[in-house]
Amino acid sequence: MWTFDAFPSARVEQSLGVKVDQKWLDRVQAASVRLTSGCSASLVSPDGLVLTNQHCVVDCAQNLSSGSADYVKDSFLARTRAEERTCPGVQAEILQTITDVSADVAKATNGLSGGDFIKARNAAYARLETAACGTDTTVRCQVISFYRGGQHKLYRYRKYSDVRLVFAPELSAAFFGGDPDNFNFPRYALDVGFLRLYEDGKAVRTPQHLTWKARAPLPGEATFVSGNPGSTDRLLTVSQLETQRDLVIPVSQLQRSEMRGRLIEFSRRDAESRRIATDSLFGLENGFKVFFGRQFALNTPSLMDAKRADEADLRARVAADPALAARIGDPWSEIAAIQKVYGDQYLRFRQLEAASGGSSDLFNFAQILVRGARERTLPSAERLPEFADARLPLLTKQLLDSTPIDAPLEQLELEFWLLKTREYLTADDPVTKLLLGRESPEALSAALVSGSKLGDPAVRKALWEGGQAAIEASDDPMIRYALRIDSEARAARKSWETQVSAPTEAAAARIATARFAVYGDKVYPDATFSLRLSYGKVAGWTWRGTEVPSTTQLAGLYERATGAEPFRVADRWLAARDRMKLDTVFNFVTTNDIIGGNSGSPVISAKGEVLGAAFDGNIHSLGGNYGYDGTLNRTVVVSTAGATEALRHVYGADALVRELGVR
Amino acid sequence: MWTFDAFPSARVEQSLGVKVDQKWLDRVQAASVRLTSGCSASLVSPDGLVLTNQHCVVDCAQNLSSGSADYVKDSFLARTRAEERTCPGVQAEILQTITDVSADVAKATNGLSGGDFIKARNAAYARLETAACGTDTTVRCQVISFYRGGQHKLYRYRKYSDVRLVFAPELSAAFFGGDPDNFNFPRYALDVGFLRLYEDGKAVRTPQHLTWKARAPLPGEATFVSGNPGSTDRLLTVSQLETQRDLVIPVSQLQRSEMRGRLIEFSRRDAESRRIATDSLFGLENGFKVFFGRQFALNTPSLMDAKRADEADLRARVAADPALAARIGDPWSEIAAIQKVYGDQYLRFRQLEAASGGSSDLFNFAQILVRGARERTLPSAERLPEFADARLPLLTKQLLDSTPIDAPLEQLELEFWLLKTREYLTADDPVTKLLLGRESPEALSAALVSGSKLGDPAVRKALWEGGQAAIEASDDPMIRYALRIDSEARAARKSWETQVSAPTEAAAARIATARFAVYGDKVYPDATFSLRLSYGKVAGWTWRGTEVPSTTQLAGLYERATGAEPFRVADRWLAARDRMKLDTVFNFVTTNDIIGGNSGSPVISAKGEVLGAAFDGNIHSLGGNYGYDGTLNRTVVVSTAGATEALRHVYGADALVRELGVR
Repeated sequence: MWTFDAFPSARVEQSLGVKVDQKWLDRVQAASVRLTSGCSASLVSPDGLVLTNQHCVVDCAQNLSSGSADYVKDSFLARTRAEERTCPGVQAEILQTITDVSADVAKATNGLSGGDFIKARNAAYARLETAACGTDTTVRCQVISFYRGGQHKLYRYRKYSDVRLVFAPELSAAFFGGDPDNFNFPRYALDVGFLRLYEDGKAVRTPQHLTWKARAPLPGEATFVSGNPGSTDRLLTVSQLETQRDLVIPVSQLQRSEMRGRLIEFSRRDAESRRIATDSLFGLENGFKVFFGRQFALNTPSLMDAKRADEADLRARVAADPALAARIGDPWSEIAAIQKVYGDQYLRFRQLEAASGGSSDLFNFAQILVRGARERTLPSAERLPEFADARLPLLTKQLLDSTPIDAPLEQLELEFWLLKTREYLTADDPVTKLLLGRESPEALSAALVSGSKLGDPAVRKALWEGGQAAIEASDDPMIRYALRIDSEARAARKSWETQVSAPTEAAAARIATARFAVYGDKVYPDATFSLRLSYGKVAGWTWRGTEVPSTTQLAGLYERATGAEPFRVADRWLAARDRMKLDTVFNFVTTNDIIGGNSGSPVISAKGEVLGAAFDGNIHSLGGNYGYDGTLNRTVVVSTAGATEALRHVYGADALVRELGVR
Repeated sequence: MWTFDAFPSARVEQSLGVKVDQKWLDRVQAASVRLTSGCSASLVSPDGLVLTNQHCVVDCAQNLSSGSADYVKDSFLARTRAEERTCPGVQAEILQTITDVSADVAKATNGLSGGDFIKARNAAYARLETAACGTDTTVRCQVISFYRGGQHKLYRYRKYSDVRLVFAPELSAAFFGGDPDNFNFPRYALDVGFLRLYEDGKAVRTPQHLTWKARAPLPGEATFVSGNPGSTDRLLTVSQLETQRDLVIPVSQLQRSEMRGRLIEFSRRDAESRRIATDSLFGLENGFKVFFGRQFALNTPSLMDAKRADEADLRARVAADPALAARIGDPWSEIAAIQKVYGDQYLRFRQLEAASGGSSDLFNFAQILVRGARERTLPSAERLPEFADARLPLLTKQLLDSTPIDAPLEQLELEFWLLKTREYLTADDPVTKLLLGRESPEALSAALVSGSKLGDPAVRKALWEGGQAAIEASDDPMIRYALRIDSEARAARKSWETQVSAPTEAAAARIATARFAVYGDKVYPDATFSLRLSYGKVAGWTWRGTEVPSTTQLAGLYERATGAEPFRVADRWLAARDRMKLDTVFNFVTTNDIIGGNSGSPVISAKGEVLGAAFDGNIHSLGGNYGYDGTLNRTVVVSTAGATEALRHVYGADALVRELGVR
């Protein structure tokens, strides 16, 4: 997960025997796309065609669907440009430049701590972002913190706000094997999706695209993955890992599990319930499996023992250098002491602020409208950071784009949030009383959803543009509710930032300094959903004596199919069977180090050809959140060869195949 | 949780200033009742009237209900003996004698290990039980292991197989505050239920009953709780606790959470779904909260630190005595080494054997029928222990008593079990393939439930009496399915018993020996669902600076009621408000050390009066599974004073009140 401004080309040549020069890096960077929906992608034609995963466009396909057209269940294929449809809320971004602004941030925050530190740092970020991008609406500037506060860099992106859906296969093909096969391998999934960038109503010209190469990967072949790994926790201290293991992950997993049970039964009510719950359920089950893997990684004594040994080594080296020791102090003990405060505040902070409203869109809209109205009366640098000028364009787009609101799901999300708050904090806790009054979670959530008009983008627009006066005059129950809890929720956030985040970040920055001093920059920073490049090779692995081969073929899909979900293949796939070369490689694995957020990343050969799209990791990769183990961790890729065969013979997507340059 | 044959009367006198002599102990023992449904109870009239909790009779009330009469939701009151109705599957047992058989068991197992040890021990238990009870159908003999194999004692019970429901209040009164208030205090719940013992169709004469005393408990008053705490893990080694913390509890909690979500949504389908799911959901939520408390107790550094210190102390004392050290060896390291095997086998063992079939009654019937047919062809001492002669009467009763089978719940249980097996072990695991073949969990579970006739007690009886031939000739799909997986499931069990249970028990017995040698018998054994007596006193507690008083009054119920579930009081309670003395003590807390299984236990004054029925612990008591903390752990009791007031004014249960001796 190397940043493009510090890629170790020499090490790559040494370990893989292939050369990547600056030109190669520049070309890959220019063709790498970040999707604000939380995924990665790449340009694969001169006309703005973007390759990603189906699971990165499923939210778009769901939003474009209705009771009469279900593009998730049945696939979406635009046979002409005119049939391509804009994905609500999605923005595509291509990284242009990276600038180190660590010194500026350090100057602004020098000597500050607690709430003052947070405020000054947020203000510095806002100033730097505005200064770099100004009022240019075609770019986005974002200051990103690396090494847990050890570095701050300004990333400037070319942005595209009109992103249209070109192709998404049916869920039964993209996610063949469903949750049971997720994060497992051998695998047989067509998890590809295509989008196209538009500007001023026209497809964007993208001469810097990568070349789609419909060939099988070679065993041992070098592979590069360019994308945006979301987050990792490799630089956390042992005490922080223990908090994750003992508190944060268990609580979130128990909530995911219960909600999963809710959604599964909910989706059995009728076909429409099933349709609207599909996307949420996929996200939930995927998240569940990710954290299941993490929880068991943290519960594996070998991992924690290794973390303890690493930490002891660094501390010993710091202690051995008196000048360094004086500069660093003992940030490990400081962070350990903060964990007590973390534990004391966590559940209230989580329920009242960090996870308030569950995943309810209506509540989220209401909170943005209520807070945005107040914050926008302040100078940019003094606002809550998500409302700083540089952040407003994307926030506004996400708030005002039209997306369907599924009332029964909204109600379920709110009800569940309120139920869990009462369960964890007890009925007698002031937070529970604030959130519920004398109402029940069931009745309150139903009243809020049925009474709110915020599902209408025009209503949101009027409130957003009407500012504080419009908010105060609104009788929308969701707005009133967000107002009712806002000051307590802000107070919980402030207390958390002041007593947990700020001192943690200050201590972590000193650990980062210590690490640079002792080890240099031989370790890449934790993932931050910013562009990274990983090198690796095509390779299977061995687990408990069983060798797992590196590739699967199309034939295996038909062998695995049972006719019952999630191992059912669509009729069109059955019909296409005889037309396909069944020994074509379908999915494969590589040793690249990736993590969630990398989904949709191009898997690139040393020559710069696209060999596939990364869409998953194997089960061992889930512990990769805490550290990468090259003997076991694998990236799972859908091959361009297999995808081309399917596009041609299953979907008859001839124009798309031609645009990809396949003859 | 002292056993009645080793009660520390002198210590009680010293710490509480009250005397309990052998006569007192004998009387309490003779009036203490164990319910095979997993609860405790006491005789409170000369005519076999038994006091317990509503939540200990809710299963009976559910089984006696139908779509047209819902005794869980609406209460049950037999106004005459003729209206009292037999609870299916329930047996009541009163302890008569305790005999130490440690030497017999030691002789039978001397020098054996692994599978041979398990076999010899089971055979010894079967022989001892049969020898003590013979063919007398009015008694039950049970050898119980104490101190994790350090002692073995034969408990002989007078048993009553016809137990009838007399009174159960509506769920909204018994479980007022529902899951949010469960394990919390202040509390306002009428969690009482009454049963009556019958023999030959007549109420049993019980002159040894305790006296129901409708008075408020006094602050600081000594209280004794006589009952059957189910199980505790206080004597586990640190490595065993870590396995619980890192593997066993997380997996079971995640499953409970998801099933809870399933059941909540399931119960919203319609009124009948809600009715049939109520009891399962209560059990699940209660279990969830218990293990939530345990998980967080094990994740509290202070608890594990204390456990480590205790273990280090015992090991050091053993090491300091060379003769003792030679006799004990290093069982702690042996148990630690077994944890690796435990972890490797656990999920397969759990899914294929320990938790097979989920909570499906039909699967359970099929497994008992299939295994029972084969086992009963063997001599008693060579069978799987649950089929030994002494165990067969209760097993047969539970198998053949008529209970309603709720097909949709059965299907859900089986489907969930199969889904989780595939999820944890992957679709490619041999166990998954054995359980599913090429079928889906959804289709297979539906076919098994809809095709099986085992819901009919006559069908079960015919198969049970028909033995091996009847089983082999049966085309019932559930019987065929249980047969299909039986040999693999037995193999998983044998492997577990040989490689995990037997060496663990052997090592634990040596730790018990070490503990006796070093500390004497000042520690009571872990709970084993056998009769224990706990002493304590009426007292509130202080948590984070807040004092929690020891009692609540009836008035508080009305103040807490909101009109919405689970804080809704029934109309008859609203109507009775003005007739009641609202300052009557309703619930109270004591320092007695109890745990699940103690539910329904009488809370007895030094004079031998019943002051209430224990029905819950406070939230801090959940960590009591690993150790008792007298400053925080509390038993929650429904007071005889409050219950009498309600019986009289809410239910007009005048005959019952008279029978309780209240004038």
